[in-house]
Amino acid sequence: MFKGALSGIAHYTAPLRRFGASSVARIVVLAVGLSAMTVYTVPDLQRSADIWLSACLWCCLAYFAVETAMRAQAAVRAGEAKAYVLTPSGIVDLAGALAVPLALLCGVTPQTAWLLASLWILKLAQNSPGFAQLGRVFKLEAKPLASVFALFLIVLFLTSAAMYLLERDIQPAAFGTLPAALWWAVVTLTTTGYGDEVPQSNLGHLLGAVVMICGIATFGLWTGILATGFAAESRRRNFIQTWDLVGKVPFFQSLDPSAITEITHRLRRLEVPERTAVIRRGKVGDCMYFIAAGEVQVDIKPAPVRLGAGAFFGELALLLNDSVRTANVTTTMPSTLLILDLADFRTLTAHHPDLKRAIDAEGQRRVAENTGVRDLQRLSGAPPS
Amino acid sequence: MFKGALSGIAHYTAPLRRFGASSVARIVVLAVGLSAMTVYTVPDLQRSADIWLSACLWCCLAYFAVETAMRAQAAVRAGEAKAYVLTPSGIVDLAGALAVPLALLCGVTPQTAWLLASLWILKLAQNSPGFAQLGRVFKLEAKPLASVFALFLIVLFLTSAAMYLLERDIQPAAFGTLPAALWWAVVTLTTTGYGDEVPQSNLGHLLGAVVMICGIATFGLWTGILATGFAAESRRRNFIQTWDLVGKVPFFQSLDPSAITEITHRLRRLEVPERTAVIRRGKVGDCMYFIAAGEVQVDIKPAPVRLGAGAFFGELALLLNDSVRTANVTTTMPSTLLILDLADFRTLTAHHPDLKRAIDAEGQRRVAENTGVRDLQRLSGAPPS
Amino acid sequence: MFKGALSGIAHYTAPLRRFGASSVARIVVLAVGLSAMTVYTVPDLQRSADIWLSACLWCCLAYFAVETAMRAQAAVRAGEAKAYVLTPSGIVDLAGALAVPLALLCGVTPQTAWLLASLWILKLAQNSPGFAQLGRVFKLEAKPLASVFALFLIVLFLTSAAMYLLERDIQPAAFGTLPAALWWAVVTLTTTGYGDEVPQSNLGHLLGAVVMICGIATFGLWTGILATGFAAESRRRNFIQTWDLVGKVPFFQSLDPSAITEITHRLRRLEVPERTAVIRRGKVGDCMYFIAAGEVQVDIKPAPVRLGAGAFFGELALLLNDSVRTANVTTTMPSTLLILDLADFRTLTAHHPDLKRAIDAEGQRRVAENTGVRDLQRLSGAPPS
Amino acid sequence: MFKGALSGIAHYTAPLRRFGASSVARIVVLAVGLSAMTVYTVPDLQRSADIWLSACLWCCLAYFAVETAMRAQAAVRAGEAKAYVLTPSGIVDLAGALAVPLALLCGVTPQTAWLLASLWILKLAQNSPGFAQLGRVFKLEAKPLASVFALFLIVLFLTSAAMYLLERDIQPAAFGTLPAALWWAVVTLTTTGYGDEVPQSNLGHLLGAVVMICGIATFGLWTGILATGFAAESRRRNFIQTWDLVGKVPFFQSLDPSAITEITHRLRRLEVPERTAVIRRGKVGDCMYFIAAGEVQVDIKPAPVRLGAGAFFGELALLLNDSVRTANVTTTMPSTLLILDLADFRTLTAHHPDLKRAIDAEGQRRVAENTGVRDLQRLSGAPPS
Repeated sequence: MFKGALSGIAHYTAPLRRFGASSVARIVVLAVGLSAMTVYTVPDLQRSADIWLSACLWCCLAYFAVETAMRAQAAVRAGEAKAYVLTPSGIVDLAGALAVPLALLCGVTPQTAWLLASLWILKLAQNSPGFAQLGRVFKLEAKPLASVFALFLIVLFLTSAAMYLLERDIQPAAFGTLPAALWWAVVTLTTTGYGDEVPQSNLGHLLGAVVMICGIATFGLWTGILATGFAAESRRRNFIQTWDLVGKVPFFQSLDPSAITEITHRLRRLEVPERTAVIRRGKVGDCMYFIAAGEVQVDIKPAPVRLGAGAFFGELALLLNDSVRTANVTTTMPSTLLILDLADFRTLTAHHPDLKRAIDAEGQRRVAENTGVRDLQRLSGAPPS
Repeated sequence: MFKGALSGIAHYTAPLRRFGASSVARIVVLAVGLSAMTVYTVPDLQRSADIWLSACLWCCLAYFAVETAMRAQAAVRAGEAKAYVLTPSGIVDLAGALAVPLALLCGVTPQTAWLLASLWILKLAQNSPGFAQLGRVFKLEAKPLASVFALFLIVLFLTSAAMYLLERDIQPAAFGTLPAALWWAVVTLTTTGYGDEVPQSNLGHLLGAVVMICGIATFGLWTGILATGFAAESRRRNFIQTWDLVGKVPFFQSLDPSAITEITHRLRRLEVPERTAVIRRGKVGDCMYFIAAGEVQVDIKPAPVRLGAGAFFGELALLLNDSVRTANVTTTMPSTLLILDLADFRTLTAHHPDLKRAIDAEGQRRVAENTGVRDLQRLSGAPPS
Repeated sequence: MFKGALSGIAHYTAPLRRFGASSVARIVVLAVGLSAMTVYTVPDLQRSADIWLSACLWCCLAYFAVETAMRAQAAVRAGEAKAYVLTPSGIVDLAGALAVPLALLCGVTPQTAWLLASLWILKLAQNSPGFAQLGRVFKLEAKPLASVFALFLIVLFLTSAAMYLLERDIQPAAFGTLPAALWWAVVTLTTTGYGDEVPQSNLGHLLGAVVMICGIATFGLWTGILATGFAAESRRRNFIQTWDLVGKVPFFQSLDPSAITEITHRLRRLEVPERTAVIRRGKVGDCMYFIAAGEVQVDIKPAPVRLGAGAFFGELALLLNDSVRTANVTTTMPSTLLILDLADFRTLTAHHPDLKRAIDAEGQRRVAENTGVRDLQRLSGAPPS
Repeated sequence: MFKGALSGIAHYTAPLRRFGASSVARIVVLAVGLSAMTVYTVPDLQRSADIWLSACLWCCLAYFAVETAMRAQAAVRAGEAKAYVLTPSGIVDLAGALAVPLALLCGVTPQTAWLLASLWILKLAQNSPGFAQLGRVFKLEAKPLASVFALFLIVLFLTSAAMYLLERDIQPAAFGTLPAALWWAVVTLTTTGYGDEVPQSNLGHLLGAVVMICGIATFGLWTGILATGFAAESRRRNFIQTWDLVGKVPFFQSLDPSAITEITHRLRRLEVPERTAVIRRGKVGDCMYFIAAGEVQVDIKPAPVRLGAGAFFGELALLLNDSVRTANVTTTMPSTLLILDLADFRTLTAHHPDLKRAIDAEGQRRVAENTGVRDLQRLSGAPPS
């Protein structure tokens, strides 16, 4: 789970590598810079470690400035300098590199100027496919989300006007003006509930209860809309990610187009770094793998076998009854695998007996020869590497 | 995202344009009026800017009164005066125009009377298809939502009675009466948690923990119901919005009814204002477009080409391997487009080889001629405009 | 929306009518009784209106006691006395009727004894199909929900132990014991946030942030599980409610079994009380209706026509292009209708051309004769009533 | 509902029974140990019951130490000692057994050392299939979840920097440093809302409102992602759990592979303990049962009949019109049943008339003979037991 989230984060920075900046280094610089900026605002710590903090901050700034310069140079070389400056990514780069120096030049005190370093956090969003996806969900569901927001505003204004009427004489400090009542209504509708302003009259309590329940309903609608939109977007993204890879597996070439579409909907893409175990011996197997790109090594006796792009493995556990993995499988280079779950394997082979027969035949042969993968290349058409 | 939300809001006001009121102007008036009303309740600001605020408020009131008068006149002319007064929209108009003057006539102080201007916020809900949709979700799921609400009431009463018993002697001010305990239970069940009333005994803490967990469960059920209802309603609405437009695209006419139904489920409607870029050259393409109404201009060499209703574009990026857009496409008038996503394009063409062949042939020809769209009209049967 | 919720609430009480108790009266008695009990705990109000409140409470108690007696008698007559006492419904009845008198007999003060009247709220759950449905969702998803709850407990214990270590010396009053830290953790994990106990150290703040984010994740999982379970249960319930009714519509008899199954999945059941408008002239139509039970009157010229069980109406707006309703349709008795949405109508008729032809022919005839429904009975096989 | 949750919890502990530890005993020990540890931190209680609490804690520790020793011994015998120490389950065992004694040996005071007993709560997660499932959801949805988390961090940093600027001079105690502002932002974004730090300026209120609404949006996205992931995972798990069992029911053997796949998607697995009523006479029936493993007894006249693995029952209520159960059915040993819902029964039999005919024939025969199950074994091929 943590590993998955981390690889998700690492994914953002993948496109940056061509600029020579390692993604891990970049996240470390970001973390150090933001931490230093945060500590810099605490008077005691700032006084006792001023030099170190300033050094940290200037180093991070230099790093981001160099990065921006390199990217700008690359863009100029490609004749796309103007386009770079106008993309969100370019704006984030330039803001990160220039905001603090400009503020210092304008005579802002360092304590305040370095606050602009918080713009660096926007670098998390650069080149991220995940953000594009979330953005698409918001865009596709813009109308119902706007309706819920309008509902939110309607409840907000009507209840805060009513609460102002009810409580302005009882609590002039908390509900003496409509802006104060609006603040209470926002705090309550979002179920945040600071407790700095609380109605005291009985009618106020009743109205407050209505606002809270409306808050839960608004929240529920909002979540329902986003869940619906996300489910649709998720299916679509998965199909697009998988489609191109399916064409690279010779095994699927013999299928008719509607079967290929069906299998594309069911496969799931997995990026595996170098030297990572994909299958561990003795574990219960619930999926098989197709290699779209890269290479894996199967540790069988007498000698390990390597499988390249186009081959498949892990099908034995699905074909046999005990479904336990019989060998370790490890990547030898960064690889892209396509995963077919047990449930989808069963459904697909039920509808496409040919597929079933081909995989079955291969499985029988491997068991018979007690090798596991020796003949795999012949079947899948992938050359041994 | 923001743009999407804004266009969602703008959508509400579209039907009002026939009354001559620009939707943007209307929202500005609404914002100014509500802001003035809000500021009017702050004694200091009200004293120092009384004339300006009053002027603002009276202007907004005049605007809404004129609008109401125009609509009422239109309704009288159509012989539907009574129907207009009884529709929610008519009630909102009349309340917005008459509530404040009537209150002032009845001798209510201006400070209080202008609070009724908060009724103007209801104009956000007028003629909005989004609200109708949310209303349908609530209506279809009324029974399970009512069950969850009953569950909410049961937990509320039983726990507040128990908490009143446990804490009335320890904290007479906070839990000395059942209404006070009910207020605590509502604040806690909705996870708002003001903190104005907090149990202090150990049993009270235990009961409070149970209430909070029940609150989360209630919330989860509520959200689950709304998500389910919204997903169903969303599919239905999309189909209805798309169905009529599909009939306007000649390309789909040759398909059999079940294929038309299938394609209708997969298309997504998009309203594009005048002079807006639909496709930008160099971007990765993941969908193609059919023009249901309006016109677009494709910027290709030697001269740009215009495509009218019934034509399609953007299919090249789906057919070729690099999938990069080769030309800018911009609307020349407000247009209605139907979007077909890459994933749906693949699935549809797999099931309907004819469709695939027709689009493919057109793609081949465009690539061969290196023009992009020159021959498009011939294929799609739309006249060049 | 409100009407829907109300009819949802009214639905609970429908099965009670055979005991002669009107459901509306029952809800009024419940509301009066619970209100009186609530007011009874406020010392000032209780002193000034003791007699009236006591009278209210005793009347409500008498009402529920009589109701219980009648049900018990009915059960005794049916020879199921023991079964009645052991059902949840029977327990709720007996507790509501006996708890307060028994407490008063045992010498409990009236102020405390009448608190037991809060058990009356459980009557909301009696005989309710909605509760059975929510219960089924919890039962089917019991394992994942239990896993999330175990996760909740794990986070709760580990973080409260850590917070106790961090803050026990800084804030002995708030975090001086583990139970106090547990209370803080529950309040924070459920995002209630009273603010009565707040960490003050930097590490405490960091740990608190982790707990809040875990709280949101737990909440999200919980909601996701309930949403998934509710969607499945909702489909299932809709099918079961509709299946029996489909058999009562002659029009569907000619379809093959798989078409009947398909149409059952798409129809939605609607219970309409007597003399209620189903269709209003001039409204945009987006569905058609089949009468499973009851009768409706179509207000057409020269004379209104009545349609009984098995007939259908409202199909004209789906067949013609303008899709505006041409006549009012009102129920003449409590009726059960099956609704077929526009989207499902299109999909069904595309897959079943026979269905399309039959409805189409009827539509053509009605338009030709400019009558609306005159010949409907002939087609649908339902006798004119 | 509660029963379901309990059986869900009990499920975790099932795999532990082979070590001779009853699962109920284990949960009791866990509850006693954690309660004792909690009470041990309350000075008053600890002083008055020190001996009893210590005894409790040492007993629980002994229990877990013995359990760990037994498991380690079993692992050593199987030659997997190293693997055991490295599995999460092994680490939890060892930490639970060794943490407290080691802390005491290192000279930590008992009050602090026994806090490490909170690690015992991790035993709830041992060998639990539910946790594996939740973990899979997080892993599959890692990328979008990481995107939402990055969005959360971006909003967090930018708004806390802005709030620090706005309020540092007004409230130096609450917003005087950036870490304090970050704490406020976390508390607000998660809608926890302690109220220990509340903005006071008007701009601060506006910014706070934006943060709260962002909090709800983040929450909604998070929930939407988890709901989507959970729905997919839930379908997959159900298929895998059911697949193997379907092979054990002779009745399904005659179906073709695609029908078997379809039926597997629709069946639901149910584990029933010994001597538990599956069907009660007189209840409305909405599903039928296939016995995958175990045995049930049908209480019919003149003598009860037992049905073993491979048989089915409960189909009569689905075939007849009144759909009321005609006999009690109880398990005689722990059994695994496959449930087929009414809705799925109808859909399946519509698509597979053979299935319908076979079940129908059996139903007719049972009704004719008025026996219920006598001839069931013949049809289903299961031997009477």
